Amino acid sequence: MVGGGPGAFIGPVHLKATGMDRRYELVAGAFSRDPVKNAAAGEGYNLPADRVHADWRDLLAKEQGKVDVVCVVTPNDTHFPISKAALEAGFDVMCDKPATLNLDQALALREVIRKTGRNYGLTYTYSGYPLVREAKALVAQGKLGRIRKIVVEYPQGWLSQDVHSKQADWRVDPKQAGLGGCIGDIGVHAFHLAEFITGLRVTELCADLGKVVPGRMLDDDCDILLRFDNGARGALIASQISAGERNALRIRVYGELGGLDWSQETPNTLTLNYGDKPTEVLHAGGGYLSPEVQAMIRIPAGHPEGYLEAFANIYRDFADQITGSGKTVPGIEDGVRGMHFVAVAVESSNARQWRTLKDV
Amino acid sequence: MVGGGPGAFIGPVHLKATGMDRRYELVAGAFSRDPVKNAAAGEGYNLPADRVHADWRDLLAKEQGKVDVVCVVTPNDTHFPISKAALEAGFDVMCDKPATLNLDQALALREVIRKTGRNYGLTYTYSGYPLVREAKALVAQGKLGRIRKIVVEYPQGWLSQDVHSKQADWRVDPKQAGLGGCIGDIGVHAFHLAEFITGLRVTELCADLGKVVPGRMLDDDCDILLRFDNGARGALIASQISAGERNALRIRVYGELGGLDWSQETPNTLTLNYGDKPTEVLHAGGGYLSPEVQAMIRIPAGHPEGYLEAFANIYRDFADQITGSGKTVPGIEDGVRGMHFVAVAVESSNARQWRTLKDV
Amino acid sequence: MVGGGPGAFIGPVHLKATGMDRRYELVAGAFSRDPVKNAAAGEGYNLPADRVHADWRDLLAKEQGKVDVVCVVTPNDTHFPISKAALEAGFDVMCDKPATLNLDQALALREVIRKTGRNYGLTYTYSGYPLVREAKALVAQGKLGRIRKIVVEYPQGWLSQDVHSKQADWRVDPKQAGLGGCIGDIGVHAFHLAEFITGLRVTELCADLGKVVPGRMLDDDCDILLRFDNGARGALIASQISAGERNALRIRVYGELGGLDWSQETPNTLTLNYGDKPTEVLHAGGGYLSPEVQAMIRIPAGHPEGYLEAFANIYRDFADQITGSGKTVPGIEDGVRGMHFVAVAVESSNARQWRTLKDV
Amino acid sequence: MVGGGPGAFIGPVHLKATGMDRRYELVAGAFSRDPVKNAAAGEGYNLPADRVHADWRDLLAKEQGKVDVVCVVTPNDTHFPISKAALEAGFDVMCDKPATLNLDQALALREVIRKTGRNYGLTYTYSGYPLVREAKALVAQGKLGRIRKIVVEYPQGWLSQDVHSKQADWRVDPKQAGLGGCIGDIGVHAFHLAEFITGLRVTELCADLGKVVPGRMLDDDCDILLRFDNGARGALIASQISAGERNALRIRVYGELGGLDWSQETPNTLTLNYGDKPTEVLHAGGGYLSPEVQAMIRIPAGHPEGYLEAFANIYRDFADQITGSGKTVPGIEDGVRGMHFVAVAVESSNARQWRTLKDV
Repeated sequence: MVGGGPGAFIGPVHLKATGMDRRYELVAGAFSRDPVKNAAAGEGYNLPADRVHADWRDLLAKEQGKVDVVCVVTPNDTHFPISKAALEAGFDVMCDKPATLNLDQALALREVIRKTGRNYGLTYTYSGYPLVREAKALVAQGKLGRIRKIVVEYPQGWLSQDVHSKQADWRVDPKQAGLGGCIGDIGVHAFHLAEFITGLRVTELCADLGKVVPGRMLDDDCDILLRFDNGARGALIASQISAGERNALRIRVYGELGGLDWSQETPNTLTLNYGDKPTEVLHAGGGYLSPEVQAMIRIPAGHPEGYLEAFANIYRDFADQITGSGKTVPGIEDGVRGMHFVAVAVESSNARQWRTLKDV
Repeated sequence: MVGGGPGAFIGPVHLKATGMDRRYELVAGAFSRDPVKNAAAGEGYNLPADRVHADWRDLLAKEQGKVDVVCVVTPNDTHFPISKAALEAGFDVMCDKPATLNLDQALALREVIRKTGRNYGLTYTYSGYPLVREAKALVAQGKLGRIRKIVVEYPQGWLSQDVHSKQADWRVDPKQAGLGGCIGDIGVHAFHLAEFITGLRVTELCADLGKVVPGRMLDDDCDILLRFDNGARGALIASQISAGERNALRIRVYGELGGLDWSQETPNTLTLNYGDKPTEVLHAGGGYLSPEVQAMIRIPAGHPEGYLEAFANIYRDFADQITGSGKTVPGIEDGVRGMHFVAVAVESSNARQWRTLKDV
Repeated sequence: MVGGGPGAFIGPVHLKATGMDRRYELVAGAFSRDPVKNAAAGEGYNLPADRVHADWRDLLAKEQGKVDVVCVVTPNDTHFPISKAALEAGFDVMCDKPATLNLDQALALREVIRKTGRNYGLTYTYSGYPLVREAKALVAQGKLGRIRKIVVEYPQGWLSQDVHSKQADWRVDPKQAGLGGCIGDIGVHAFHLAEFITGLRVTELCADLGKVVPGRMLDDDCDILLRFDNGARGALIASQISAGERNALRIRVYGELGGLDWSQETPNTLTLNYGDKPTEVLHAGGGYLSPEVQAMIRIPAGHPEGYLEAFANIYRDFADQITGSGKTVPGIEDGVRGMHFVAVAVESSNARQWRTLKDV
Repeated sequence: MVGGGPGAFIGPVHLKATGMDRRYELVAGAFSRDPVKNAAAGEGYNLPADRVHADWRDLLAKEQGKVDVVCVVTPNDTHFPISKAALEAGFDVMCDKPATLNLDQALALREVIRKTGRNYGLTYTYSGYPLVREAKALVAQGKLGRIRKIVVEYPQGWLSQDVHSKQADWRVDPKQAGLGGCIGDIGVHAFHLAEFITGLRVTELCADLGKVVPGRMLDDDCDILLRFDNGARGALIASQISAGERNALRIRVYGELGGLDWSQETPNTLTLNYGDKPTEVLHAGGGYLSPEVQAMIRIPAGHPEGYLEAFANIYRDFADQITGSGKTVPGIEDGVRGMHFVAVAVESSNARQWRTLKDV
C-alpha cells in the first residue's frame, strides 16, 4: 500500500475492506513521506520494518515478485506516477479514485494499461453497494421502461467552513486535487453512479460551479444540467458546503413505467415507485433480488451492511478479476471518463454555456 | 365561486378549505359552462337555483352586494378576464394560481388591483403550511446564517403517460395553460416557495425544459439552474413525468451555519441539519415554534394536518386581510413574478442560455 | 353542540370536521356551563343569541324539531345523561368517545338506543383514516392469511409532568374520567383499532397499568398482553408519560403470509411486509386501493390528508347512515365493548393476573 | 474457531468481524463434524490441513500455545462443554451467544472462569453498535431523567413458515437450542439491550410465549411485561413469526425528561424526543458524541457502518480486554443473566403468572 499514514481517511478504509473477506493481506507499505509517521504506521499494521519502505519507488523496487497488488491511496497528484510505475513494474494496481490529476494523465495511463496488460481497478465505491447493482440490473431488464430523467445529488457539508485538516487541505489545493474541487472529489462519484446504473452516457452538460467559502481556489458547490445519449434529461447536484449534510449521495432514475430511488446513507433499501401500483421497497438480503446481487451480500436481511462492505465488494470483485473468475471492477475507462467530465464541467461553468462530452 | 364543476380538482378543494374555519360560506356559483353540469353542481352544493348562474358574467351582475369574495377556480386562460371583471365590479377576489395566462395580463391585472383597491389573493397553497412559515421565520432570524444554496424540487408522475382527463387536458393545451406546462403548473410553486422561505430573489436562471411525452405541446419536465440576489446558487427541478412520484415538493436551504429540509408529503416536520450538533426535527404543534406559527395550527402535535388545512390557512389569512386584522396572502406581486419566471425560463430553455430575471 | 367552549380541544375539531364536507351546519349550542364563556363561544361561531342555550337541558327542550343531530363533546362524566336525554327527545346523537363513564351506563345507553331507534355514533376517529379502512379490507380479503399477532401501541408524552390545563384536568380526575386514565383516554382507541382492522375480538388480557407521575389517581401508562378469539397473541402499549412522544398510535398485524404496519402520524401510507417479495407501500389516493377507500379520499395522491379529514370521514359516514345511504359508524356496541375493556384491564392490573373479556 | 462450516451463518460473521481491524488471525479450526465439509471449510479459509482438526477436542489438544483465543460458533448445546474445556486448557474464549444451554451450565461455566482466570466474551452484538453505547452514556448522564418506561421489540419473520435449513433446524430443536426458542435466540438480545442501555435490572416479568407454527416444539413468539428495579415498567416483544419483518430490533427508553429511540436496521442514528424542544437525531460520526463512542467509529459521518462493524467492535474490545488496555465485553454475568431470564420467562408463560427474577 502506498499512502494511508496517520490521519488518512481512505487508506484505513482500503485495509478494513480488504481484511473482511480474507482475499488480501497487507504485507508491505510506504505509508508516509515522513519517516517517523511511516515507521509508526508500519508498526501499527504489524509489518516487519524491512517491508515498510521509504517511498513508493523503494516499495516498487523491493517488492517485485513479493506482492501481487499495489494499492494507491495517496492524494490525487501522485496517483498517475505511482500507478504508471507500478503497472510497468508488473504489479496489478488498485487506485483510489480519481485515476489521475487530469485527463491527459488518464489517457496516458490508459496506454500504459493497454501495453502492460495488468489489471487496474479504481474504487468507485458506491457502485459496490448491492442495491446499486440491483438498480443497474432492473434498469437493464427494462423494469422502468425507457429512461427519461435522472436526478443525482451528493450534498456534503464538511467544507462549509474554512476548515483545515490533512483531508481537507489537499482537496482544496489545485496542485494536489487537480482542476476540480467538489466536482472532482464527489461530483464524479455522482456522475459515475448515474452512468453506471442507467448504462446511459452524458452527452451534454451545463454547469454552475461555485467557490463559495471565501478564499477557496477550487469549486465547493456544483449544479449541473445533463443530457444523456438517449435524450433523457437530468440534474447533478454536488456540494461540500451544504451545511449539515453528511454524505447524502442519492440517485433517482425515472423511466416510462416507474422510478427508482436509492440513498447511500440508507443503502440497504431500494425504492421503486409506480403510478399504478404500490411502491416497492427492496431490502438487501431479499430472496427476490437478482442472484448475482444476492451473492454479494454477506449477512441475512435486516443485518445492515455499509460503506466498508461496499468497498470490500469492489476489492472482492477485483480479486475475482485477477484470478480470472469473471467479475470486473471500474477501471481506467471510468477514470478517463471522470477526468473528461470534470474538465468539461469546469469549462462549461467558466463559459456559462452548455458543452458537449465526447467519447475520449 | 366560478368553476369547480363535476370532475374538477381544485374547486372542491377551495370549498373544503373555506368550510373548515367557518369564515366563508358558499352562496352562489357559476360552476360549469355546461348548463346540466352547472345545475348539478349547484344542487350538490345545496344552493338555490337562482344563485346558480349561467356564467361568470351573469354571476357578477346578479350577485353585486350579495357576495363578498369571488373565488376563481377555472382553467388558467380565464383567470384574467374573470378576476378583472370581478375586481372592477367591486368584489374581492381569491384566484387559483396562476394569476393569469401570461405576463402582460398579470401586469394589467396589477393595474386593475391598484385602481380598484380591492383585495386580491392567489392560492400559493404551499406557503400556507405552518412549517413553511416556520422555515421562513428561521431564515429571517438568521438561524442558518447567510444563505448559500437552495435546492427545490417538485416531481410528479401523473402526466408520465399521454393521459386524458378534465384535469390533464387543459394543462397540456397552450391555449388554456399558457406558455408553460409543468413550469407553469408546478414549477412556479417551487419557485415561489424558494423565494418565500428565503426572502431572496432569483436574478438569473438557465433552464432545460423538455416535452417528454410524445405529442405534448408544452413542457412536462424542467431542470433549472438558479442564481439569487445575494449570490446564492440553486437548482429547481420540476417534473410531471417522474413516474411514480405523487406530489413530492421538497425544499432544502443551506446557509453558513446549517440547512433546513421540508417535504410537502410529510408536512408536519421541519428538519434542521447542522455540522456540529445533532439534527433537529421540529414538529407541528411544538411549543418551541414561533408564536405566529403555533397560532396557525388547529390540533395538538401528532395529529397531522395536511393540504386542505394549508389551503384553509391561506383563506383564513385572506379573511383577516379583508377584515383588516393584519394578515396578508400571496397576491398579484407573486402572480406577476411567477409569470415573469415562466416566460424567462421558457426563453432560456429555447435559447439554451442563461437569462436574467428583472424586477417587473 | 354540547360542550366545546373556550379552551376545549375536541369541540372545535368536531366543528372543523363537520364544516369540511358541507353535510352539517352548526345552528345551536350549549358550549359552557359558564354563561360568559358560553356566550363568547356562540358569538365566535356566529350563532344568534337565542340559539346559544344555558345548558344541554335547555338546548334539548328548545331545539326540538330544529336540529337533527346533537353532538356531545363534554367531559366523559356527562356523556351518558346528555346522550340519553337527547336520544329520548328524538335527536340523533354523535358523541365523543367514550360513550359513557362506565360499563353500566353504556349498557343502559344501549337499551335507550334500542328503544328509541335513533342513530347514535361514537367518534373512534382513527377508524376514519382511509388507510385504516384499507388495512381492514386487506385483512378481510385474506391478504395476510390467518392473523397470528397484533402489536398496537399508543404512546403520548403530554402528561409526563404534573401538568394542569382544561384538557389535562378532567382526564386525570376519576370523577370526570371514570375508572381509566390513559387506558380510557387512548388505550381504548388502540383496542378499538386492533379489533376494527382485524375483525377479531380480544378474549383475554393481562394488564399492567401504572400511575407514574406522583399524585396521579388514574393510570397514565399501560402495557397489556392480549389473546384474540382465533388464538392470535398481541400486545397493547399505551402511555401518556412516554416523554417526547406526540400521538404515535401505530398498529402492526401479522398473518401467515405477511404483515401490515400503519402509523397515525404518517397516515397516508400503509406498509405491507412479506418474507418473499418486496415491501409494498400503499399511498392514499392510489388507484389500486379498494374502491370504497378511494371514494373516501378528497384530494389526489401526495396531497396529505390528516386527522381532521379522518374525523370528517366519520361524520360523513354518519350523515350517510342517517340518510340511509348505507354507511355506518362506530356506535354503542363499540362503546360497550370499550367500557368493558377498560373495566377488565383495570381489574387485571389490580389482581396482577390474566382476565377474560366476555361478550356483553 | 470451532464451528462455522458450510451453510453456517454466524461463523463467517465472526471471521469477517475479526478481519476488519487486523487484531485477530484465523490460524486453526474444527469447522464441522463432517470430515468432508470440515476439510472444505479449511481450504476455503486457506488453512494448512494440519490446522484443520477433526473436532474441538482435537483442536484444543493440538493448538495449545499456538492459539490465543478459541472462538465458539457451534449450536447452543455444545457451547458449554467446548467453552469449559477451552478455558481449562488455558485458552481465552469468545463464544457466540447464548453462553450455554441452560442456567445450570451457565453457573458452572462462571465457576470455571473464576477458577481459570481466563478471558471470556459473549457476542451480544447489538451492544457493539456505537449509538447503543451513546444511548447508554446518555442515560447514565441523566439526559432523560429517571427512567420510567422501556419498550424493546425484536420482530423477525423468517420462521413464519415451517422452514428447514441448517440455521432453522437447531433453533427449533429443544435438544440443541435449550428451553427457549425465540426467547432464547433473540428475546435475550432484547433483554440484554434493555438492561445494557438503562443500567436497570428486570425484577419481575409476566410472559406469554407461543408456539405458533404447527408442530413447533419451542416458542416462536413472545410478549412479556416487565418491571425494573427502579420501578419502571416495560414491554418486551420478540417474535420469529412476524411475517415480513427482517431483524427489526428496536428500543425506546422514556425518562422524566425525554425518550430515546434506536433501531438496529438504521443503526447510525439515535433519536431523542422531548416534549418541550425539537427532536434531536444523533448521527454516527458526529463530533458531539461521547469521546469513547467517537473513537469506535471507523469512517466519517454519512458513511454507514453496520452489523459486521458492531460485531467487530465486540472483538476489538475483547482484544483490548485481553491485552489489558481497559475495555471489556459482555461475558459470563450476561450469560448467566440471559439463561435466568429465559428460564423465568418460560416458567411465567407456563404458569400464566407474574414471576420474579433474582440475582443469581
